[in-house]
Amino acid sequence: MSARPRVVRVDLGERSYPIHLGTGDLDGVGDAVARHTGANQVGLVTVPGVGRRYGARVVRSLRAAGLKVTRVQVPDSDATKNLGQVRKLYDRFLTAGLDRKSALVALGGGMVGDLTGFTAATYLRGIPFVQIPTTVLAMVDASIGGKTGVNLRQGKNLVGAFHQPSLVWIDTATLRSLSPRDRAAGMAEVVKAGAIWDARYFARLERDCDRVMELDPRALIPVLERACRIKAEVVRRDEREESGVRALLNFGHTLGHAIEKQMGYRRIRHGEAVAIGMVHAARRSEALGLAPAGTAGPIEDLLARLGLPTEIPRYDRRAHLAAMKVDKKKEGRKIHYVVLRRIGEAQTVELSPAEILPARAPA
Amino acid sequence: MSARPRVVRVDLGERSYPIHLGTGDLDGVGDAVARHTGANQVGLVTVPGVGRRYGARVVRSLRAAGLKVTRVQVPDSDATKNLGQVRKLYDRFLTAGLDRKSALVALGGGMVGDLTGFTAATYLRGIPFVQIPTTVLAMVDASIGGKTGVNLRQGKNLVGAFHQPSLVWIDTATLRSLSPRDRAAGMAEVVKAGAIWDARYFARLERDCDRVMELDPRALIPVLERACRIKAEVVRRDEREESGVRALLNFGHTLGHAIEKQMGYRRIRHGEAVAIGMVHAARRSEALGLAPAGTAGPIEDLLARLGLPTEIPRYDRRAHLAAMKVDKKKEGRKIHYVVLRRIGEAQTVELSPAEILPARAPA
Repeated sequence: MSARPRVVRVDLGERSYPIHLGTGDLDGVGDAVARHTGANQVGLVTVPGVGRRYGARVVRSLRAAGLKVTRVQVPDSDATKNLGQVRKLYDRFLTAGLDRKSALVALGGGMVGDLTGFTAATYLRGIPFVQIPTTVLAMVDASIGGKTGVNLRQGKNLVGAFHQPSLVWIDTATLRSLSPRDRAAGMAEVVKAGAIWDARYFARLERDCDRVMELDPRALIPVLERACRIKAEVVRRDEREESGVRALLNFGHTLGHAIEKQMGYRRIRHGEAVAIGMVHAARRSEALGLAPAGTAGPIEDLLARLGLPTEIPRYDRRAHLAAMKVDKKKEGRKIHYVVLRRIGEAQTVELSPAEILPARAPA
Repeated sequence: MSARPRVVRVDLGERSYPIHLGTGDLDGVGDAVARHTGANQVGLVTVPGVGRRYGARVVRSLRAAGLKVTRVQVPDSDATKNLGQVRKLYDRFLTAGLDRKSALVALGGGMVGDLTGFTAATYLRGIPFVQIPTTVLAMVDASIGGKTGVNLRQGKNLVGAFHQPSLVWIDTATLRSLSPRDRAAGMAEVVKAGAIWDARYFARLERDCDRVMELDPRALIPVLERACRIKAEVVRRDEREESGVRALLNFGHTLGHAIEKQMGYRRIRHGEAVAIGMVHAARRSEALGLAPAGTAGPIEDLLARLGLPTEIPRYDRRAHLAAMKVDKKKEGRKIHYVVLRRIGEAQTVELSPAEILPARAPA
């Protein structure tokens, strides 16, 4: 039931960094943090549940590596990801004496990573940070690529910075404490990686889906590794979302964000909204003649096997259209919308919100 | 009385940008903004005094270049440089529909540039921005090099980002509306450029000092140009303050910041505090045997001719020491303090706050 640790390198010149993937090796993180950040003091940010389970082990490992640690807990809710919380973190870290030779460490899911990363990006004009993701979503997506940010009342991630971590440390054993619902939600981004980039990987997911959900490391580690490699490759080709390659990662996200916004972020998981958005985008790809018939079906089936929703709940076309209009991906009037050409290959097309959500409710 | 515009290039690879130096050519800024940012919409940030004098001209020039303009005025005080103001700017720009193809333009002094630059660095994870500096300080220092940021109650510039502008547009005619005190304060950074980097330039300042203060373009433009070139060269060698070269720009700033903090930012100009800090650092350089006797004298004389203070007002060693300890340049216990080896050559040494401010009041 065990597997050797793997390392995926995110290749970004002087901003390159390794993603370590192991099982049950959280105790090794301290040495790696010291080595990759050069820090002598760290601020560790986590949420209560994760902190209770893993906080003491991480703190012990950091201290054993000679690091002074200031531990801060933030409320476990996406509503925590705001400027007020960033300001509280600045205060805590100034009081603790964190200086330019210090680093931040995010222990938790995507929210903790985004919040901590943005704080690191802007504290004293930027200090290093490390991600210890404890959700599937954070492992394969949020922790890789340097997107950090917080929400405004007008929308998600409207404020942020590109700030690459110095290290991502994944211990898949931390996934055991995740609820089945959260585990499944995270798998949406794994399915996305296959759908937009790698048909063979998609087939592997269809085959290994059940063992992955049971967290069998022999199935899980290779699946997470490949998802990380795909994300790393996309980020390497287009670090700052300029050439359009990175935009492919938005597959399922345009409608997904609108659904999250319309339902309220507490009531639907990001991955669930993205699952619905991917099925919708795959169906639209077929309907617009961009992908062959039969493209959406396997995606819908795999997501359903993972226990993810595939239909828009409480469909309200006007509300969803309005939500899309403040989406930060909007440029001018048209929206860059990611469609599939087939499973394993995506492209961006310019569509108006009305073309994305046609007047008839999506079939 | 006129002089041809000059262009100084800040050479930072894909983040390179030009500094345009002219006199009376504010009307040309719109085309340059459109060309260098690629934006179709801009947010223009300014303060009441500058806005009243130059706002309409800049807006007209931007609109003539086909740009949609949202103009925002912020209070003219360093206290404006805070996170609450940044949040207000986010709100205004979201309401105005600024997207990733938009840019910000800062029209004013260093405060406006720092605030606008930080907002641009973090709005939608970063959009381009242009500096139109209207003070000497902003022209030769604050607008060049990509340091952006805001103050926290604990200290100045504790939050920020490195975000290079796409263009700096200097029209020296805008200096005419500056009070003599503000003009002089800005010259402190010009003197600094000579003191740390270029003895011949320092000699030129001694020669042309009066004509520069009268804003004679034939003396002023070459002086500003050389100061910009020195700043650009330092930034090119050490964009993110990593190798120590950029730290030389902190000459006079360690004590300067402490004085500003202790007196309150409203009661002393940044340049005045830096002038005092430079004289102190030059004297300490002599006292520590790092620079030959007679190094501090000419600096003190030149600053005095410009009407700048050279002695610490209301000296309070304990308060100044305390203020230095939260300076963000602090690393570990010792402070990187910039001393002179001679006029035109500086170096950083590690000193404790007590070595910088010896127990006896500085002579």
